[in-house]
Amino acid sequence: MKDIKSLKIAYIGGGSRGWAWTLMRDLLLERELGGEVRLYDIDYEAAKINEDLGNKVDKIARYTDDSTWDPKTGYMDEIEDHERLTMNWRFKAYEGLEDALDNVDFVFISILPGTFDEMESDVHLPEKYGIYQPVGDSTGPGGIIRALRTIPIYEGFAKAIKKMCPDAWVINYTNPMTVCTKTLYKVFPEIKAFGCCHEVFGTQKLLCKVLKEVVGIKDVKRENLVTNVVGVNHFTWITKANYGEIDLFKPYAEFAETCLNGYKDGGDKNWANASFRTKEMVKLDLFKRYGAIAAAGDRHLAEFNPGYHYLRSPEQVREGWKFDLTTVASRKDELKKRLEQSDEMYRGEKRFDVWPTGEEGVQQMRALLGMGDMVTNVNIPNYGQIPNLPIGAVVETNAAFRHNSLEPVFAGDAPIGVRSLLLRIIDEQEMLVEAGLERNLEKAFKVFVSDPLVTIPMDDARKLFDEMIENTKKYLTMYDI
Amino acid sequence: MKDIKSLKIAYIGGGSRGWAWTLMRDLLLERELGGEVRLYDIDYEAAKINEDLGNKVDKIARYTDDSTWDPKTGYMDEIEDHERLTMNWRFKAYEGLEDALDNVDFVFISILPGTFDEMESDVHLPEKYGIYQPVGDSTGPGGIIRALRTIPIYEGFAKAIKKMCPDAWVINYTNPMTVCTKTLYKVFPEIKAFGCCHEVFGTQKLLCKVLKEVVGIKDVKRENLVTNVVGVNHFTWITKANYGEIDLFKPYAEFAETCLNGYKDGGDKNWANASFRTKEMVKLDLFKRYGAIAAAGDRHLAEFNPGYHYLRSPEQVREGWKFDLTTVASRKDELKKRLEQSDEMYRGEKRFDVWPTGEEGVQQMRALLGMGDMVTNVNIPNYGQIPNLPIGAVVETNAAFRHNSLEPVFAGDAPIGVRSLLLRIIDEQEMLVEAGLERNLEKAFKVFVSDPLVTIPMDDARKLFDEMIENTKKYLTMYDI
Amino acid sequence: MKDIKSLKIAYIGGGSRGWAWTLMRDLLLERELGGEVRLYDIDYEAAKINEDLGNKVDKIARYTDDSTWDPKTGYMDEIEDHERLTMNWRFKAYEGLEDALDNVDFVFISILPGTFDEMESDVHLPEKYGIYQPVGDSTGPGGIIRALRTIPIYEGFAKAIKKMCPDAWVINYTNPMTVCTKTLYKVFPEIKAFGCCHEVFGTQKLLCKVLKEVVGIKDVKRENLVTNVVGVNHFTWITKANYGEIDLFKPYAEFAETCLNGYKDGGDKNWANASFRTKEMVKLDLFKRYGAIAAAGDRHLAEFNPGYHYLRSPEQVREGWKFDLTTVASRKDELKKRLEQSDEMYRGEKRFDVWPTGEEGVQQMRALLGMGDMVTNVNIPNYGQIPNLPIGAVVETNAAFRHNSLEPVFAGDAPIGVRSLLLRIIDEQEMLVEAGLERNLEKAFKVFVSDPLVTIPMDDARKLFDEMIENTKKYLTMYDI
Amino acid sequence: MKDIKSLKIAYIGGGSRGWAWTLMRDLLLERELGGEVRLYDIDYEAAKINEDLGNKVDKIARYTDDSTWDPKTGYMDEIEDHERLTMNWRFKAYEGLEDALDNVDFVFISILPGTFDEMESDVHLPEKYGIYQPVGDSTGPGGIIRALRTIPIYEGFAKAIKKMCPDAWVINYTNPMTVCTKTLYKVFPEIKAFGCCHEVFGTQKLLCKVLKEVVGIKDVKRENLVTNVVGVNHFTWITKANYGEIDLFKPYAEFAETCLNGYKDGGDKNWANASFRTKEMVKLDLFKRYGAIAAAGDRHLAEFNPGYHYLRSPEQVREGWKFDLTTVASRKDELKKRLEQSDEMYRGEKRFDVWPTGEEGVQQMRALLGMGDMVTNVNIPNYGQIPNLPIGAVVETNAAFRHNSLEPVFAGDAPIGVRSLLLRIIDEQEMLVEAGLERNLEKAFKVFVSDPLVTIPMDDARKLFDEMIENTKKYLTMYDI
Repeated sequence: MKDIKSLKIAYIGGGSRGWAWTLMRDLLLERELGGEVRLYDIDYEAAKINEDLGNKVDKIARYTDDSTWDPKTGYMDEIEDHERLTMNWRFKAYEGLEDALDNVDFVFISILPGTFDEMESDVHLPEKYGIYQPVGDSTGPGGIIRALRTIPIYEGFAKAIKKMCPDAWVINYTNPMTVCTKTLYKVFPEIKAFGCCHEVFGTQKLLCKVLKEVVGIKDVKRENLVTNVVGVNHFTWITKANYGEIDLFKPYAEFAETCLNGYKDGGDKNWANASFRTKEMVKLDLFKRYGAIAAAGDRHLAEFNPGYHYLRSPEQVREGWKFDLTTVASRKDELKKRLEQSDEMYRGEKRFDVWPTGEEGVQQMRALLGMGDMVTNVNIPNYGQIPNLPIGAVVETNAAFRHNSLEPVFAGDAPIGVRSLLLRIIDEQEMLVEAGLERNLEKAFKVFVSDPLVTIPMDDARKLFDEMIENTKKYLTMYDI
Repeated sequence: MKDIKSLKIAYIGGGSRGWAWTLMRDLLLERELGGEVRLYDIDYEAAKINEDLGNKVDKIARYTDDSTWDPKTGYMDEIEDHERLTMNWRFKAYEGLEDALDNVDFVFISILPGTFDEMESDVHLPEKYGIYQPVGDSTGPGGIIRALRTIPIYEGFAKAIKKMCPDAWVINYTNPMTVCTKTLYKVFPEIKAFGCCHEVFGTQKLLCKVLKEVVGIKDVKRENLVTNVVGVNHFTWITKANYGEIDLFKPYAEFAETCLNGYKDGGDKNWANASFRTKEMVKLDLFKRYGAIAAAGDRHLAEFNPGYHYLRSPEQVREGWKFDLTTVASRKDELKKRLEQSDEMYRGEKRFDVWPTGEEGVQQMRALLGMGDMVTNVNIPNYGQIPNLPIGAVVETNAAFRHNSLEPVFAGDAPIGVRSLLLRIIDEQEMLVEAGLERNLEKAFKVFVSDPLVTIPMDDARKLFDEMIENTKKYLTMYDI
Repeated sequence: MKDIKSLKIAYIGGGSRGWAWTLMRDLLLERELGGEVRLYDIDYEAAKINEDLGNKVDKIARYTDDSTWDPKTGYMDEIEDHERLTMNWRFKAYEGLEDALDNVDFVFISILPGTFDEMESDVHLPEKYGIYQPVGDSTGPGGIIRALRTIPIYEGFAKAIKKMCPDAWVINYTNPMTVCTKTLYKVFPEIKAFGCCHEVFGTQKLLCKVLKEVVGIKDVKRENLVTNVVGVNHFTWITKANYGEIDLFKPYAEFAETCLNGYKDGGDKNWANASFRTKEMVKLDLFKRYGAIAAAGDRHLAEFNPGYHYLRSPEQVREGWKFDLTTVASRKDELKKRLEQSDEMYRGEKRFDVWPTGEEGVQQMRALLGMGDMVTNVNIPNYGQIPNLPIGAVVETNAAFRHNSLEPVFAGDAPIGVRSLLLRIIDEQEMLVEAGLERNLEKAFKVFVSDPLVTIPMDDARKLFDEMIENTKKYLTMYDI
Repeated sequence: MKDIKSLKIAYIGGGSRGWAWTLMRDLLLERELGGEVRLYDIDYEAAKINEDLGNKVDKIARYTDDSTWDPKTGYMDEIEDHERLTMNWRFKAYEGLEDALDNVDFVFISILPGTFDEMESDVHLPEKYGIYQPVGDSTGPGGIIRALRTIPIYEGFAKAIKKMCPDAWVINYTNPMTVCTKTLYKVFPEIKAFGCCHEVFGTQKLLCKVLKEVVGIKDVKRENLVTNVVGVNHFTWITKANYGEIDLFKPYAEFAETCLNGYKDGGDKNWANASFRTKEMVKLDLFKRYGAIAAAGDRHLAEFNPGYHYLRSPEQVREGWKFDLTTVASRKDELKKRLEQSDEMYRGEKRFDVWPTGEEGVQQMRALLGMGDMVTNVNIPNYGQIPNLPIGAVVETNAAFRHNSLEPVFAGDAPIGVRSLLLRIIDEQEMLVEAGLERNLEKAFKVFVSDPLVTIPMDDARKLFDEMIENTKKYLTMYDI
């Protein structure tokens, strides 16, 4: 059995000030586990800084009720004093990927494929053609080009994992989530990998809100609902939801009806989405269309539908659907801020705030180490858990985490109406992974031109595609351009 | 065994001057079969006229190489003289549906649900909202409203067939083909029905043209090609096509490439499509996108794709895709012409031209009577012949006709890329039949608003839908409007 | 939300001194739940006695390390003193089934269909024809005749549950387990029922033994293994088994090899199986044949295989396979003993021993009440959790118990070699339920004559069948005999 | 297009006096085709003799109404005089397999794996253990050992075909049919192969007899029935059978009932089965058990069922089931006779009788050459034509032969009861091909010991297996023995 005090964790993208810090926070609050965390990043300096922050955490960290985190959801309940921080972990930056992976127990991956300059091209260039993308990292023109950058990188990760730590559990956070996870499995079919995403949580919290506002039951946590999840990442659907005996579909229908005439503030205040507050109008509109609960943020959901539905123009987005198109400029600003914070912390001028993030990575690790079973939603290949979607496609459903074991819970069929939308994006993603692994940009263009956001003539689509490729070619050197 | 000289055939829509005449022509050229043909029509007078024409055919009919029919395709080879016309059939108009169906061996159905005035609303009203439909009888706003008129009528047919002739073979020609066939099976699951459509033939003829122009092999008839058909009516796909050892996909790809830069005249000259000559550009564009051969006329194919692809504006249709939006006015003109001809024939002033129409109804009858096996494409429920489409949905594939037996040929999976398009239309059709049988216009609106031609905001879609219903309410009295 | 202190539980078969006492024991040790337990039994007096015992439990019960229960497995760890018994439950006998079911939260069912006299016929009559059955309650001639008695009774239960408590969770313990559960679902498809059986636990304990003896790791509890279960009740198979990183298939193969040459004492000491100690030779032989771990007692497993494999003669059973054919006489003896104990307790001459029984019913109730998730094996219809077995057949796999929710964990395909054995028994059970619900003994005979224990000519089979029916006709009055 | 007068056919096993002569007969009566027939045989001398016979056929052949062929079935109708023999074929013996295959259009394969001495061991050695096999070439101990000899040979054929004539159509006649066909597809997945067997014809003829005796309709040919075929070779089932409007299941049930009390002579008089006349009792008994029409000779059918059903003892076979256990001695005798005839013909002392054999090989060739479509039963992999049997397993169903195209007709599910029997034999065959290709006798033994004819203890089974291997090791040199 593994010594849970001497675990070996590799973090690919270990210089990140986003997801890497999130994991560090949760690890520092976990009292039973310990070991080493290997931070690998193509920006080695960034990894060094995180190494430093991690190792002097006893000197610089503090608990917090950081304003981006809503204490009312109750995570903080039992955390009262400084002693709750554990010093069980040693952090170490690595220059080589294979060294970092050598014989580890867990691999976390969260990378930015390219830089925000490439993402700027992904997201904003299509606006020239009237194509608006609120996120642009999962699907649509932006998600497709980003996938082309990402697939060869993940091909490399899969090969390195196969060589250095074939038995490790691999947890992916990077977008495009489905494409990343699929690439790992395609290159190394025996990999023990899953993709992990908090988007469903936001909808579960919305259901708690519905429970409060429509049914009159307060203070229920999302973990206490029972939901059945069917779909692909960022286009996930809840097909059953109950709180004990209460079926949540009826009150949700009532809530949807009310909100779509007028609206109420709703939803998710998780850190990663904080500046992206939505009014959930897309979600409710989708419910009205299809009778199932779309379970991701509106900004994501909108991108999987025909462009003329939710993304006709910035005005329609803002006034009709009440959400914002996240600019890459704002992402750059936020990154700058986090880098400054990082520097201040590094120089000892600022505390490293620690709180329970609400992410599930550490809980999943615990379950995989045999410390309590867990049922939650993850992204893995479809073995049949959704019988009416293609076998092998990476799908998001509930799964049972047990000791060194991850098995999907049977999720049932995707509902009529929704299933063709899911099949479409699955085909897009399957063909995109093929295109990426074959380094075949023509095949990628076939995917591009059929994406529902690409509502422009084929010739224009060609021009746009070529320009987007050209713009980001620094990170596409593995293709023959 | 049935006495093939004393068959009983019911023709629902027996006053029609289109499909009814077509069947009459082929029956009059068939030498071995005979019996009675019962013509039922809500326009009894029209049925009477056809009765009269049919019964005095020996006096008024003549062979012809009618200009709408291309003698080069060779059907006429063996027909040389007047004696080839058989006088084996008695025609009789019926006022009551059940009387007409009583104990018959075959039922043919070709009706116009409503009149061309309703069709005018179906096809042209959506143009106010920028929605253009080249046919408007199968899908899109027009096809959906037409389906709502049709389903209750077909519910009645199914019940009458169940009561009066449960063992009869039922051959449907009416559009929306899939919805009609599905309704028959849903109301009377043991029915021996299939939907019959000549659209695939046109694409087979196009393949003959490719064979001639690209490969250099002339004078091949469409019947001599071997094709594998997968899909739903009017959105059918050929996934394998060969002429002996020659795989036709390669020359087709070459042909597509050439035509899409420049174009060539092509295709089908069947009577029903005569005024609708197309340049096959949509078909070739779909091939380029998905790598499979779309096998219906461009006017139909265009309607199953997002509106912005092929139906952005009349100009795009005409100049970009080289086909015409068929106006209902032109249909009315043509009908008027046929009625005039009918009158002239009735008064003995004009001959009733007879030639082999190229339709397969009579050949299928022969096969079902045990007079030679036949493999051709038909519309029946999916028992598994297309494994990756839903069981029970009405699909179009090849089937083996044998003595009193119709079994689908295993067709294989719908190809990646295409399968989600097929699943979408299948869901539309399945939900539409439910909506029609439940008389549920709200469910029908859900289908309407998700149709890919409905690229307008939901509020506008509602207005359009309501107006289209209002316009045609004379034929929607079974709904609660 | 349900008030967990005021639950309403119906126990059908509530006069039983076997499973009813087991549940009572576990309820009395459960500290958080409470409410009323309604004991319904066709033997109302027996139910009255259990009512009395249950209600005076504070006066008569005591903890025990009863000799049939092995303290080393550690369930007793935290139970130290008398105060651990809870007085949260009121027991009450009911004369009417519907009254007992009225609006309850949970229904437990454990009945004996007929008496041990009928079971004597089931088990021993076939011996005349050289057919030996170690249990005779699940399959084989005995199981089939028992099923015929049981199905109409369960039809009645299903109807009463539908009428009186359609939202209750229904937990079945009666054999033939699959047939009972299937009948419930067939009669009332929306029922929230599952069948519950401890047979897999014994094999899990055997795997713990293997872990100790082959790998050298001691003191692992069965709950700490991770197993994947595939099959039907009493013919269940473990297709994956690991203890953390250790794959248990390799050491199991080694263990099997050693035992099959020579043998070791093994297995399950659960009360219900105490007198039935086996040497696990059948289980190991099946592993050698098929490469998967059969997961039930040898006495059960033997009955699902051709008679000449494990049940050729009493000598072969005893000397070749090292297990005993349980006589119904011994069952009668044991019942007599339990009835005497019951009387002594009733008269206050004997204590009612209470200990944690190792059964999971109360834990499952807790999970369904939202008090902690649980993954364990149950019997429910196949929705696709075993893709290569028929949809709708009742199968045994893992399932996730959550708040008012039970969903199968995806189990994967039954392995090659084993799948046809499973399909055979599934067909037997499906047809048997049809035969029972249709009251069709001819259909039942078709099942009978194809059972693999029925290795006799068809004429003899007919005689045996008729005699077995005749012998038990007192409990087959619903059939036309 | 192929020149149908210059076809190239390779015949593997071309020295055979059985199937090779059969094909020669049908080719000599075929008026439109012609070309060269390459006779390859490991016994080159035998091939030379057939070459000689084939080439001088104009001198030595004559039409005949050979007594083994029943003229009443009417095949001979139009054959009246000597001129009907065509001299369109040149025959030539080849010493090298690859030379024979070089660029051919068709490959026929009918070989005897080993000699009748090996077959003697296959069939008769198991009798020592009370295991009786009426044929012993498809399943059971004999079929299994034969398969082990055959698989490596077919592996060689598949490789040679892949190299020399990858586009040829390959028609297999050798038993074990399923194993041979599966081996071809496993080694060369793109092969255009199918297995061809006349066993179903016999049952179709029996249905004609039923039509005559029960319904009173005479003189119907088997080709005029419509049957749906589901299963694996020699264990095929007819699940629908009609003659026009007449469903044949009802009269068949009546026939079965009558025959099973008393019996009537029935069935197949095809040359290959002539000396093996059966009374069809097994077939009728299987109908009574399962409600579907088993469609092969009783001698074959019996072998796929538990040994105690139909093969308990030679007496039971003879008196209870009215068929004979074919001895290999009788096969040797018959071979001797055919060799003598061959010599006489070679020396010009005897005529080579030619008649239409009733086999379909030449008709299938014609259909594949585009000379008329054909629907008949063949053995090919399951693509989904039988949805409830494993994909990829070689199954027997109807298929549509068209120009250079062979596609299965959708056959539907194997019926309940029968499907587990089919799945068992499929698993046996799949594992056997694996065992053969891996040269793994231990895996083969696992199959052997689970065969339903092997009703003996495992130790005895081991002894028998080892002895059968030892006996035939001359033809098992590719295994490590």
